[in-house]
Amino acid sequence: MMHLVIADSELELIPREMKKHPAVKRHGGRILDSSLHHSAMKKLKDGYRRGRPDIVHISLLVATESILNKEGMLRIYVHTRNNEVIYIDPKTRIIKNYNRFKGLMQQLLEKERVPPDGEALMEVRKENIIQLLQKLDGKKILFTPNGRKCTLHEVLEENVVCIVGGFPHGDFLSSLEEVVDEKVSIYDDALTTWSVIMEAIAAYENKFIFSSP
Amino acid sequence: MMHLVIADSELELIPREMKKHPAVKRHGGRILDSSLHHSAMKKLKDGYRRGRPDIVHISLLVATESILNKEGMLRIYVHTRNNEVIYIDPKTRIIKNYNRFKGLMQQLLEKERVPPDGEALMEVRKENIIQLLQKLDGKKILFTPNGRKCTLHEVLEENVVCIVGGFPHGDFLSSLEEVVDEKVSIYDDALTTWSVIMEAIAAYENKFIFSSP
Repeated sequence: MMHLVIADSELELIPREMKKHPAVKRHGGRILDSSLHHSAMKKLKDGYRRGRPDIVHISLLVATESILNKEGMLRIYVHTRNNEVIYIDPKTRIIKNYNRFKGLMQQLLEKERVPPDGEALMEVRKENIIQLLQKLDGKKILFTPNGRKCTLHEVLEENVVCIVGGFPHGDFLSSLEEVVDEKVSIYDDALTTWSVIMEAIAAYENKFIFSSP
Repeated sequence: MMHLVIADSELELIPREMKKHPAVKRHGGRILDSSLHHSAMKKLKDGYRRGRPDIVHISLLVATESILNKEGMLRIYVHTRNNEVIYIDPKTRIIKNYNRFKGLMQQLLEKERVPPDGEALMEVRKENIIQLLQKLDGKKILFTPNGRKCTLHEVLEENVVCIVGGFPHGDFLSSLEEVVDEKVSIYDDALTTWSVIMEAIAAYENKFIFSSP
């Protein structure tokens, strides 16, 4: 089983102090989105990196539609800068339209589950990433440009927890160095969140699915 | 070199006959998008599958941000249902916001190049997929559920043209069977366009980049 943790994701509701800004009132929706709220985010702490639901969206589309997920061997968690963790049921089909996805994330962060009734496909728990990682079984690999340069084939084990940053640039907010088994870097240049996810998933499939007799 | 052709993509300007429909007037923009124009598309020929710029967007984000593209070993072409081919310069960074991406595609289909002045990063030529494929050097592999079941590792060659459908379901509109070298199926279940692209790119990297001495 591969557990995929998208860590310190820049996914959040619009902070209280921004709500009266004209740029926020002009656009509908309550999910912070730097492409809409750029001017209102200038005074916000860490404003240069916040408001990136697009990164979460593309990453989830890549992960949930993969062969590994269809084979039932992938579990996905989105951890946010506000220390919420979204647990995603493997049968969840992520909505492909970006604007509708933001509507769904708003509902999720406000009501803590989607759909509101019946079996939850996505559920939010208030916990930090250390609490999440303690629950997950397997070798914990942190993907970071400061990590040891190596190939995925080398480091992946059958039970593995892959931790990838869900932010556009800068460093992890959470202190992760002490709680992971290995820090790795798979390429010399910066990679987007979903490119790392794609590489990790494909390498896992290659090592543990396609090559099996 | 891998050439990636996204074929029969459902990317187009809003057809003339739809322009007066209230659902079209209500939303801005001139790119057909089934999530906005659904009610106006009911009478449109092939309306059930058209208007999917989201598929092109996610696929381009996956392909352009890959290690293979960063290594300069990938060329990407988007062929549309109207027999236009978008040539994408490898240094193009695809805009991550979906709404802005649609604005860019509108500009591209109307002006035939982006940016309008200076060196073009994306350029449109009026040609069908057969004309495109004749220009590309390498083994031509068509990904289709009807293809021969095999692994990517088996079929990929160093010079290869991978042809993936850019539509949500149904069959290719273009007659491709006669002009390709092989038809392959890499999984028993349906895969999204970007999942096939991700598998093809990762398998190519694994066979020709990571494993080289």
